Amino acid sequence: MRIVDIRETAIPLKSKLANSSFDFTEMTTSVVAVITDVMRDGKPVTGFAFNSTGRYACGEQMRARFIPRIMAAAPDSLIDDSGDNLDPAKVLTQMLRREKIGGDAERSIAIGTIEVAVWDAVAKIADKPLHRVIADRFSGGKVTDPVFCYVGGGWYWPGQTIKDLQDEMRRHLDAGYAMVKMKVGGLPLDEDVRRLEAVLQVVGSGDRLAVDANGKFMRDEALAYAKALAPFKLRWFEEPCHPLDYALFAELANVYAPPLATGENLYSTQDVENLVRFGGFRPGHDIIQVDPPQAYGICQYARTLDMLAKHGWPRTSLFPHGGNQMSLSMAAGFGLGGAESYPGVFGDFGGFADDARVVNGAIALSDRPGIGFEGQANLYRIMRELAGL
Amino acid sequence: MRIVDIRETAIPLKSKLANSSFDFTEMTTSVVAVITDVMRDGKPVTGFAFNSTGRYACGEQMRARFIPRIMAAAPDSLIDDSGDNLDPAKVLTQMLRREKIGGDAERSIAIGTIEVAVWDAVAKIADKPLHRVIADRFSGGKVTDPVFCYVGGGWYWPGQTIKDLQDEMRRHLDAGYAMVKMKVGGLPLDEDVRRLEAVLQVVGSGDRLAVDANGKFMRDEALAYAKALAPFKLRWFEEPCHPLDYALFAELANVYAPPLATGENLYSTQDVENLVRFGGFRPGHDIIQVDPPQAYGICQYARTLDMLAKHGWPRTSLFPHGGNQMSLSMAAGFGLGGAESYPGVFGDFGGFADDARVVNGAIALSDRPGIGFEGQANLYRIMRELAGL
Repeated sequence: MRIVDIRETAIPLKSKLANSSFDFTEMTTSVVAVITDVMRDGKPVTGFAFNSTGRYACGEQMRARFIPRIMAAAPDSLIDDSGDNLDPAKVLTQMLRREKIGGDAERSIAIGTIEVAVWDAVAKIADKPLHRVIADRFSGGKVTDPVFCYVGGGWYWPGQTIKDLQDEMRRHLDAGYAMVKMKVGGLPLDEDVRRLEAVLQVVGSGDRLAVDANGKFMRDEALAYAKALAPFKLRWFEEPCHPLDYALFAELANVYAPPLATGENLYSTQDVENLVRFGGFRPGHDIIQVDPPQAYGICQYARTLDMLAKHGWPRTSLFPHGGNQMSLSMAAGFGLGGAESYPGVFGDFGGFADDARVVNGAIALSDRPGIGFEGQANLYRIMRELAGL
Repeated sequence: MRIVDIRETAIPLKSKLANSSFDFTEMTTSVVAVITDVMRDGKPVTGFAFNSTGRYACGEQMRARFIPRIMAAAPDSLIDDSGDNLDPAKVLTQMLRREKIGGDAERSIAIGTIEVAVWDAVAKIADKPLHRVIADRFSGGKVTDPVFCYVGGGWYWPGQTIKDLQDEMRRHLDAGYAMVKMKVGGLPLDEDVRRLEAVLQVVGSGDRLAVDANGKFMRDEALAYAKALAPFKLRWFEEPCHPLDYALFAELANVYAPPLATGENLYSTQDVENLVRFGGFRPGHDIIQVDPPQAYGICQYARTLDMLAKHGWPRTSLFPHGGNQMSLSMAAGFGLGGAESYPGVFGDFGGFADDARVVNGAIALSDRPGIGFEGQANLYRIMRELAGL
């Protein structure tokens, strides 16, 4: 068996959202199709993925380097020992040929998106959901089902009132979610605290609410927010500062008792190891949120989990960034703390299967083979067209 | 005055070189032209740059995001207080709009290359060499002239004998250089030490020789090389390990007395600050080698120097990566320790002006306005064609 083609298309997210640091009006994402010569129901088995949200499309890197390297490799060098399926680790190795060490973000998003699409194909060829394939390979067969899932919401938008924000949170609770996240840092501290108190009235208690500053604060403001937020005993305080400012993370961890969170802007296992070595992050307490398709994909995510285990970190401290079926599969297959959800934002790229239901804050898994994009009609229309299916 | 067009073209380096970690056979670089409406001798003043060596061309990021943001900005928002010239810091700010924090390498190379081309235009409009403009802005007017310059050579190539390597080093000395660098890590330690001893016979003493492992070694091998190399008292031991493995750098700095060096794979000021905070790097002793056009350009390089000064680092501890006229200008204008040189490698992208002469290990500066690419006939042919001059 072999890969016959790999295609990419860049799609605008068409999002008007803004966090404390930037808006998404120009944001795009790369959708990838890995087309194999394995036929099912008269059609080639095809793996799909997209590069999550927050980083721009990266088709040029794919077309100039990663796709040609895969297509130039001997097909036998990309398949597993059974000879019946692709080996994603071998595909990853091919993509990394002639790449200089470091500078990960320049390629990790392009490579990771292709790698996750390869896994989607692998699971479909095995006729299993991806969460089952991951669990069998990396978790002794144990799938977490249902998966705890919280809403990454509470964005700023022009003209928003506190009542609008409360209404949004009520909708999330009515939809079955038991935990929500809201943005902070887009308004002065006292106004942000008023928003927070209003949301707490709706959600009930601090352990059902996280806040996200999207890396905006310098030292003084980060410490001021930490001091103001600590009494609320929130589920976590996410990205209080620059994602690589390990010294400031350590200082914050020293004064802020509830959990901190970060990781969506770490693109290599080495960056994550630096966070836990130098950032004062507390195993089993703080939260790490690497985005797998943006950080080299699933094989590398497994290596990051192994590294973290050596530092005493349980898998339940990880919540993958990106409210989509890729992260949901990985949370279920690796036994992570849970997944994120973006209901109603990021257009076709911010949801789960159309038939997914949230009950008591968790989502039951589907048994569709692969990641399950076929269960998302609007998103799958883009993918099917790309693959010519 | 205003920018009327920004163009990019990707050029293969056509290099057959290899270091311990990867080869350059697929390597490309982005050449950029920033065309202004200022006319000199009937032609528009145009700034040029390329994205140094070791990172691939990045035209898609430029065309999709950074060039449109500059061209969409009000022209007055990009000029300095005099109204007569561009302000590179303002151009940088425009390029960074709608960019997410972190993930620097994904954009720092594209942005940095455009930013350096803007500085070339600024210096040409001011009718001064870039090193003079940088010195006036950032160094109290003091230009370092001539600039100490060493050869980044000693690459591995198929069939290479120790005599070949000695002959290469003799050619560098005959050309006027007083210090050379050679690769290590591409052969077993004992063979590398034999190569090293043979080169030392030619160059005379350890302070005239640096070695570069290009980040290849894991902990055990890095420590073994450190132990074997220490007695030679080399000028520096470059990239002994992963560029972000600050813990291992600190361990090496603890056991390896001569200078260590790294930095060409650090793309943000925060990464460099982490190196000096956590990597055990010794101010005034170890060497930092950020590549300016790959790390957001000259404004950001100046910010990195300011950050380093707060940590006690003198500018003479910095040697910019990249043997080209961009780095040479910055070494001269900022008063850095020196510059690198790649005579005869990297095709049209690895040299200085055609009339540059090396005397006693240093290069005298030219008085061409801007960076001085007009003095490199082969490279300037590519640039002139891109700009339609």
